[in-house]
Amino acid sequence: MARIKISANAFVYPMPVVLVGTVVENRANFITVAWVSRVNYNPPMIGVALGKIHHTNQGIHENKTFSVNIPGMDLIQKTDYCGLVSGKDTDKSKIFKTFTGELANTPMIEECPLCMECKLFSAVDLPSNTFFIGEITGVYVEERFLTDGKPDVHKIDPFPLTMPDNHYWKVGSHAGKAWAIGKDFKAKA
Amino acid sequence: MARIKISANAFVYPMPVVLVGTVVENRANFITVAWVSRVNYNPPMIGVALGKIHHTNQGIHENKTFSVNIPGMDLIQKTDYCGLVSGKDTDKSKIFKTFTGELANTPMIEECPLCMECKLFSAVDLPSNTFFIGEITGVYVEERFLTDGKPDVHKIDPFPLTMPDNHYWKVGSHAGKAWAIGKDFKAKA
Repeated sequence: MARIKISANAFVYPMPVVLVGTVVENRANFITVAWVSRVNYNPPMIGVALGKIHHTNQGIHENKTFSVNIPGMDLIQKTDYCGLVSGKDTDKSKIFKTFTGELANTPMIEECPLCMECKLFSAVDLPSNTFFIGEITGVYVEERFLTDGKPDVHKIDPFPLTMPDNHYWKVGSHAGKAWAIGKDFKAKA
Repeated sequence: MARIKISANAFVYPMPVVLVGTVVENRANFITVAWVSRVNYNPPMIGVALGKIHHTNQGIHENKTFSVNIPGMDLIQKTDYCGLVSGKDTDKSKIFKTFTGELANTPMIEECPLCMECKLFSAVDLPSNTFFIGEITGVYVEERFLTDGKPDVHKIDPFPLTMPDNHYWKVGSHAGKAWAIGKDFKAKA
């Protein structure tokens, strides 16, 4: 089948959606981010890519911490809102109930099924974005989101994003067991 | 509701699954990666986090390029297999049909709905992983995976991963329009 070349502004499918929290100018602030990934195994580290113009960046540079909060479907409207308006001219500190763990100036979101507090490890300066890498030092979850002691994606009920069509999606049915279903191919190979 | 603290080895939900391609010791090699994210808007850049022990790392360091290939559900078994065995002792060059774009030594996967070729921009050295950041210089797709000129997640049919329970999932039904549904909340705020 013939392949065509499309815009280099391409994406992975689908992208997880998180709310990144910090304190800027003495006020809790949250921004919606889908450019996020684990980046180191031990110690556990996570990275978030933020356009340099964002209000949040100032807070992360100052506090040397940030939080990563995973919203469930009941927060989809508020989460989308946090990506529409800037903390520069809108107070986003009252949208959610917040709590703190062990790091100062690192607000997490009470309504989010899973919240991580992170210590800034490095800020990688890229042409239009800063990629903030943080060591995950605390992870908070309610027991109702766990199955056999592990976070359960259907209980969390996240809404991953696709770009450039800009849609959120539900997570669907089970597709297979990882580090397992490939063994059948291995046996044949 | 009471929150409990769980292991700091936490993840985002769900994680996109890709196959990262390179040439190592004159042989095409592919590794399964779920720690992947866009990291820069302009020029478009993508990052992949690979444990330092992986065979792929040598190829990326030598060639200064890599590919990111998004597999569909028909490749779930082969994709899982590529995460089970190392190119050090297993030839993974014949699992897929490969093609190349404009970059030398950067094999892409014919059977994957969407493939990107990337020039290495930087290799961020972390404690147990290297985070390879590449500029996306070519994106290849078949028209049958597009709707209105944009990649369609249900036509691609990816299988995002969750950890630490290690399951793949289908992408489910539409949940909302991004940069849009938050406007209703804004109106009320």
